[in-house]
Amino acid sequence: MDIKSYLTAKRTLVEEALSSILPESDEHLTTHFEALNYSLRAGGKRIRPILCMAAAEALGGSVAPLMDVPCALECIHTYSLIHDDLPAMDDDELRRGKPTNHTVYGEAEAILAGDGLLTLAFELLSRDNVALLNADVQLKIINLIARAAGSTGMVGGQALDIESENKEITFSTLRLIHSCKTGALITASVQSGALLGGADEDEFLAMTNYGRNIGLAFQIVDDLLNVLGTTEQLGKAAGSDAEHNKATYPAIFGLEATREKAGEAVAVALEALRHFDHKADPLRALAEYIYTRSN
Amino acid sequence: MDIKSYLTAKRTLVEEALSSILPESDEHLTTHFEALNYSLRAGGKRIRPILCMAAAEALGGSVAPLMDVPCALECIHTYSLIHDDLPAMDDDELRRGKPTNHTVYGEAEAILAGDGLLTLAFELLSRDNVALLNADVQLKIINLIARAAGSTGMVGGQALDIESENKEITFSTLRLIHSCKTGALITASVQSGALLGGADEDEFLAMTNYGRNIGLAFQIVDDLLNVLGTTEQLGKAAGSDAEHNKATYPAIFGLEATREKAGEAVAVALEALRHFDHKADPLRALAEYIYTRSN
Repeated sequence: MDIKSYLTAKRTLVEEALSSILPESDEHLTTHFEALNYSLRAGGKRIRPILCMAAAEALGGSVAPLMDVPCALECIHTYSLIHDDLPAMDDDELRRGKPTNHTVYGEAEAILAGDGLLTLAFELLSRDNVALLNADVQLKIINLIARAAGSTGMVGGQALDIESENKEITFSTLRLIHSCKTGALITASVQSGALLGGADEDEFLAMTNYGRNIGLAFQIVDDLLNVLGTTEQLGKAAGSDAEHNKATYPAIFGLEATREKAGEAVAVALEALRHFDHKADPLRALAEYIYTRSN
Repeated sequence: MDIKSYLTAKRTLVEEALSSILPESDEHLTTHFEALNYSLRAGGKRIRPILCMAAAEALGGSVAPLMDVPCALECIHTYSLIHDDLPAMDDDELRRGKPTNHTVYGEAEAILAGDGLLTLAFELLSRDNVALLNADVQLKIINLIARAAGSTGMVGGQALDIESENKEITFSTLRLIHSCKTGALITASVQSGALLGGADEDEFLAMTNYGRNIGLAFQIVDDLLNVLGTTEQLGKAAGSDAEHNKATYPAIFGLEATREKAGEAVAVALEALRHFDHKADPLRALAEYIYTRSN
């Protein structure tokens, strides 16, 4: 299949849906809504919402009438980028090729834009969908996304990452940072799509396994790109991991073994999909794409 | 009724429930969990969870087996205090008589502690309660709390407050800041309690009216206390509003008229409860308490 056209088509759907969830401005809150839109509409790969849609489709479902879930995943991802970029955190000035939120709107507005997007995610996830989605399934989706995003997931991973700067850490700590910081929300994207698609227990487990392994591959490749990519390609500062003395796969294993490990994770992810038919081809192509991407 | 004993009894229930939702530490995330607990277990009036419980009881329901909702409200309130106190925001060093979160753990950890608590709130709200609560009602509660906490509620109010510093603002903007920043979550506390208690449409509207007016009274009294109280009484810096040139009721109307306006709001709140029986007495006493409190 042509993964590039697939990604372009899905990305268009996501962009359209994202435009519709947030007004461009508000009578009283001009700057706040500008700051929200600035980051949410800054482009990006939209990989989490697309994984969610592809997982639902792999099970014969369609997410099209339920874009609130993919949009919520992108809101959570975007909030995490805004907060991670803050001076008190990674202190980054570039994101998706544009000045970071706090560089444009100041720290206070950037903190609030992040808070607003995180909260908006849960507003979207809990919207009235009675006719489209069983309320128990909807609650399950909210809960799994909250757990993936919170202190035992993404937020915890970022905290551990910050606490580990300039420290010697073990490989198992690095693994934990990766699986929490990036892996958890990627896995939840696949899982929530699986639930939207009506997955049974076995299908849900297979999807979880797929999600964990592409999440791992994604982070390993991120580490690689931070070493090998240029700032222009990445749209964010290259080489920043080494500058912050962050523990990364390339720092521990070297470049070649790191690439091999990413390849192994992709292979395990593909194996997890062995019982799915051609409807899972986009998920298969996404796993390859994550391995070969250049930004 | 003896509101002081009532508050003490309920506060004990809330403290116990809060202790049970969050482990004291985590094998890997020592500092992060310390920072979460530091603020969540710092005491405070616990007015939002208590309002939620009292509203459910006013309708003949009991929140005792469903403490996740009151706890979630307190998590959201606590996260908002942590973020509001940050150097980039109000830059406060004291909260509830203790050094603020970022003063103890640094800005990065404080931002993440706030993010963690906000996300934990939605994890709690979406937990599996099938036997205790109808899933549709549970979704409704999540949605109303998310709207109250987000960019058209609390976060938006804080953004407008920050944007209004050192500016001449109209009374209607001040009203809007109050109703978003403090009023929205207080109203949502009452509303979620009403839904837990099984409110019908009329009861829900009456409770909403009660909530909006005690929310207004609460913020007016907060403004008064910021002028009249001592730092020791308040547990946070007194006089900080004037220092930041913030628009407040006393700054616009003077002290006497401000107190009158708080009294009027309480009267409207009590009137909204006129069709409720003695089971709403705690709500009535809470309205008086909000008017007469000294911290």
